[in-house]
Amino acid sequence: MTKRILVVGLACVDIISVVQDYPEEDSDQRVLDYYWQRGGNAANTSCVLSLLGARSEFLGTFATDREAEFLKEVFQKYNVVTENCVTNTDNVKTPTSIVITNSKNGSRTILHHGKNWPEIKPEHFKKLDLTQYKWIHFEGRPSCDDIKDMLLWIDEYNKTVDKDARIRTSLEIEKTTRIGLDNLFDTADTIFVSKDYVKSRGYKTKEEGVQKLYAKCREGSEIICPWGEEGAVAVGTDGMLHSSPAFPPKLSPGQNMETLAAGDTFNAAFILSRSKGQSLNEALTFGCQVAGAKCGMKGIDGLDTFKS
Amino acid sequence: MTKRILVVGLACVDIISVVQDYPEEDSDQRVLDYYWQRGGNAANTSCVLSLLGARSEFLGTFATDREAEFLKEVFQKYNVVTENCVTNTDNVKTPTSIVITNSKNGSRTILHHGKNWPEIKPEHFKKLDLTQYKWIHFEGRPSCDDIKDMLLWIDEYNKTVDKDARIRTSLEIEKTTRIGLDNLFDTADTIFVSKDYVKSRGYKTKEEGVQKLYAKCREGSEIICPWGEEGAVAVGTDGMLHSSPAFPPKLSPGQNMETLAAGDTFNAAFILSRSKGQSLNEALTFGCQVAGAKCGMKGIDGLDTFKS
Repeated sequence: MTKRILVVGLACVDIISVVQDYPEEDSDQRVLDYYWQRGGNAANTSCVLSLLGARSEFLGTFATDREAEFLKEVFQKYNVVTENCVTNTDNVKTPTSIVITNSKNGSRTILHHGKNWPEIKPEHFKKLDLTQYKWIHFEGRPSCDDIKDMLLWIDEYNKTVDKDARIRTSLEIEKTTRIGLDNLFDTADTIFVSKDYVKSRGYKTKEEGVQKLYAKCREGSEIICPWGEEGAVAVGTDGMLHSSPAFPPKLSPGQNMETLAAGDTFNAAFILSRSKGQSLNEALTFGCQVAGAKCGMKGIDGLDTFKS
Repeated sequence: MTKRILVVGLACVDIISVVQDYPEEDSDQRVLDYYWQRGGNAANTSCVLSLLGARSEFLGTFATDREAEFLKEVFQKYNVVTENCVTNTDNVKTPTSIVITNSKNGSRTILHHGKNWPEIKPEHFKKLDLTQYKWIHFEGRPSCDDIKDMLLWIDEYNKTVDKDARIRTSLEIEKTTRIGLDNLFDTADTIFVSKDYVKSRGYKTKEEGVQKLYAKCREGSEIICPWGEEGAVAVGTDGMLHSSPAFPPKLSPGQNMETLAAGDTFNAAFILSRSKGQSLNEALTFGCQVAGAKCGMKGIDGLDTFKS
């Protein structure tokens, strides 16, 4: 049986209203469209991994409300394993975002709801049968110490098995205000760092960003930075700079780019490629190709054309 | 067994986000509170009737989505009968409103979603066992011809039974833009007409409004107009003007009025009082008392103190 790729982090719900015009305060209007969508980096990445042909598992917390039922149905539809998720019955509500999309200019106004969300705990993670996995990816959630603890646990496991049975680890450092993430660069084999993070730390170019931040990474690791329409750069285990251009989608007349989940798609495609033993350059290119295609389609379902 | 009061019209869902500040376009923020609430005039009125001690039934259409499950749970909680509702499986979605409530100034910005909603049809209504009801109230939905047809059906039924077995009928004429409603004044025993409607038709005072519009009502009927903080007026079967002052709630320091569903509460209290044989003045006063109390509480649950 092929080993799984596990993605640890958040699944939430986006409740999307598409409006004709951004609403003035105290007005009312009929919306053009209204729908629910799966959100959360880890949920997106695990679903894209499955679409691309990986055996994919999501690990996170579910509440017991209607929104959680919706999310479980989505994971089932995408054939993503959720058997190790934790169901929290302490009256917490699934994190939800009310999203107002302006059809005229594509702006997205977001109202987040999510208080006291219980993240996955190390004591739960440590019950997993790690022999099932070939790659474990973590979304950089606020529970930084716990993430570190879980990554160390995988390091310890890796010391006990043959080289080809080792689990590769990766971590996404995205949010600029989660300062605890600053201390996690040396905890995983692959670090994904966001454009916003690189800019917020004062680096002038993406190349400068990955090269300077590579000093914080541990030996034998690699750091990747996807940069939207400029493609992606990386520093590899060889200490050298690698890069791929972007692959912008061909849009039909009147069609807008849809960038939602494009970053999560890049991560999924990169991880899949690398987990198959492809080179850093190949993985960067595949990541940019699939993320570019995503920007030219509504949702993610069309990505199954990249399935291998 | 006491006969039921039936309310025909809409049940929808309000998805409410309470914000610190009204969101600027393309921003994101965390909300202070987020919850779902039952909406729709008929749904509100039937729930209040039940809280006030009536045997209450709601008749409307349900979709088959999560929102419909929520609404059914709400009706069950309020002990409102829904056994004659129609479940529509044609891929329609429950009408939903995204409501953004600004905690600083109480403004409500509303994004409606509800396309091609199937209203209750006369052929369905005509299957009801009318011997179960003592009062049937209609919300003035866009399906005006169908509403007229159903009210005529009740008139025909009333001709076949003893005077004390007759069903009393009422109709709420609220929306100013539903011009089909202009032709329905002579179809029910009690007409509720809204402040907005009266003003939109060019009448200068509530008294002028009900007196002039009474000419459009049928013989032996009465017309009622609740007018918020100015109480309510009516013209009765005697052709005379009747009125009640408002009963504003006592608010705690820092507490705001909550007027959502206050009109639906007035209608419920009025109908209940009148259905028990109380006078027009008594019903007007009870309506104003209960609606005033509603403005001083969150939601409607506290109205059970008026139960009789």
